[in-house]
Amino acid sequence: MLVVAALGGNALLKRGEKLSAANQRANVRTAARALAEIVRAGHRLVVTHGNGPQVGLLALQAASGPAETQYPLDVLGAESEGMIGYLIEQELRNALPEQKLFATLLTQSVVDAADPAFKQPTKPIGPVYDETTARQLAQQRGWSVAPDGMHWRRVVASPKPLAILELAEIALLVKAGAIVTCAGGGGIPVVQAKDGTLSGIEAVVDKDLASALLAAALGADRLLLLTDVDAVYEHHGMPNARAILRTSPRLLARQSYAAGSMGPKVEAAAGFVTASGHSAAIGRLEDALALVEARAGTQIERQTTNPVYRP
Amino acid sequence: MLVVAALGGNALLKRGEKLSAANQRANVRTAARALAEIVRAGHRLVVTHGNGPQVGLLALQAASGPAETQYPLDVLGAESEGMIGYLIEQELRNALPEQKLFATLLTQSVVDAADPAFKQPTKPIGPVYDETTARQLAQQRGWSVAPDGMHWRRVVASPKPLAILELAEIALLVKAGAIVTCAGGGGIPVVQAKDGTLSGIEAVVDKDLASALLAAALGADRLLLLTDVDAVYEHHGMPNARAILRTSPRLLARQSYAAGSMGPKVEAAAGFVTASGHSAAIGRLEDALALVEARAGTQIERQTTNPVYRP
Repeated sequence: MLVVAALGGNALLKRGEKLSAANQRANVRTAARALAEIVRAGHRLVVTHGNGPQVGLLALQAASGPAETQYPLDVLGAESEGMIGYLIEQELRNALPEQKLFATLLTQSVVDAADPAFKQPTKPIGPVYDETTARQLAQQRGWSVAPDGMHWRRVVASPKPLAILELAEIALLVKAGAIVTCAGGGGIPVVQAKDGTLSGIEAVVDKDLASALLAAALGADRLLLLTDVDAVYEHHGMPNARAILRTSPRLLARQSYAAGSMGPKVEAAAGFVTASGHSAAIGRLEDALALVEARAGTQIERQTTNPVYRP
Repeated sequence: MLVVAALGGNALLKRGEKLSAANQRANVRTAARALAEIVRAGHRLVVTHGNGPQVGLLALQAASGPAETQYPLDVLGAESEGMIGYLIEQELRNALPEQKLFATLLTQSVVDAADPAFKQPTKPIGPVYDETTARQLAQQRGWSVAPDGMHWRRVVASPKPLAILELAEIALLVKAGAIVTCAGGGGIPVVQAKDGTLSGIEAVVDKDLASALLAAALGADRLLLLTDVDAVYEHHGMPNARAILRTSPRLLARQSYAAGSMGPKVEAAAGFVTASGHSAAIGRLEDALALVEARAGTQIERQTTNPVYRP
């Protein structure tokens, strides 16, 4: 099978951890070992990843200097693809010494300059703040800020990805047997003029939506959205909460799951299943191979007619 | 022909220009248009690039924050590959709309942890300073600093690249007809333990040496080292200075050319010619196609027995 596995922010940095290179490397190493099991089981693998904390850090670091080196979010997104992609490829190589080909491809995601998301920023990036600090920073720096769980964070526009510019190159590498890391941070957001000219635009694409788009376009057999919770929960946080083991895009539309970070994952997974007919899974990174084999997490399949819950 | 073209620092940023995203994009656009002529003339193309100013900037930006986000030079090098590679690929796509496949590959260069360069830093990165400021920064931050022309700069270890880790993947993409950007900043420096385990190391590899190594390993027909001077000059800066039009690695060893930034270029070009038997050229970015066709710059060929100078 061809598996597209999307590493959530928590695969790179555990909640509350400092954004050090050592912490990220240690987490990436754990992730690479979990992903290696998929390859050892005989599957082909494409790895994607988020970049929210990293792109926010790069923006903060740049903000300490003169205005001319405060690069736009597309350039910072490219920097984050370099940083994170490097760590992932290196640890995948270490985890799979028997494997020959590994490639990390800079990836651009085409978005629509008229996407309504540009008027309503929703994607949290960078560190968490208390409300007062967040509002001060918003005023000082012209940021948009919004609550994210119990904290506040900077939010930026997150337009819908329409196409993965490097799709053919990724497909070529996959066909040749390479383990490909790509579409980091959802891809570097670019717009394409009527004459075809590409240019970057200030945004951060949702990595789950970009991963679903990529997986469908690649003809992947399976999309994994990997995080630090074991499944999607119906009535999350309530006394009647229960883990959804098996569902369908149609059923999900009527189920009540936690919004927040789970919302985009469910939307992306359902989109992939609807577009491709293949199934998607949401669950823990450590369960990566079990998710591929439908033995863990929340499995989203087109043909499921009745939802299955954990007993 | 397969051409490997190495973009010097001046192809990304003209001398004295500020390191803004707009300046870099404008310069990359000019570079992409010059390189596009090589592709339109029917050749295959691999693009490499330097990262001295950029990796220095990233280090300075990180230094403004807490210690835990001051990432090592391998991670910063990876960031710079992302930033610069993105701009190059985007502008190559804009310059060559008729071309189908473009790929920018994160690239790691294997170096020897026992390379004497780790004890004697020589590679200038970041901005230029006056001597007093440079010496102050050296003391404050534990940097090594050294004169670079009329100014002073931070210098870091620049070990010799021994292998390009992603060689097979680059070759695969080239064979499929892709225009590949890779080995940015000479490649991210990594060391390989006896058991094969890879890890990053604090250094910046010379991009000309890495490009020569890559070109020879790829079986390239031509290596171009592109800069903002039209040729290598014998007796540079002296009344009897003259442009070398045609020479050989053997002859170069006896010719007196300016050291500084030209030294690594001449060494790299001669190394490629000796290793491959194919010829290399050093000259101006604007002359890229003329350099491929041996109509400009300094041509370094194995079979030249007498140097040819500009009349």
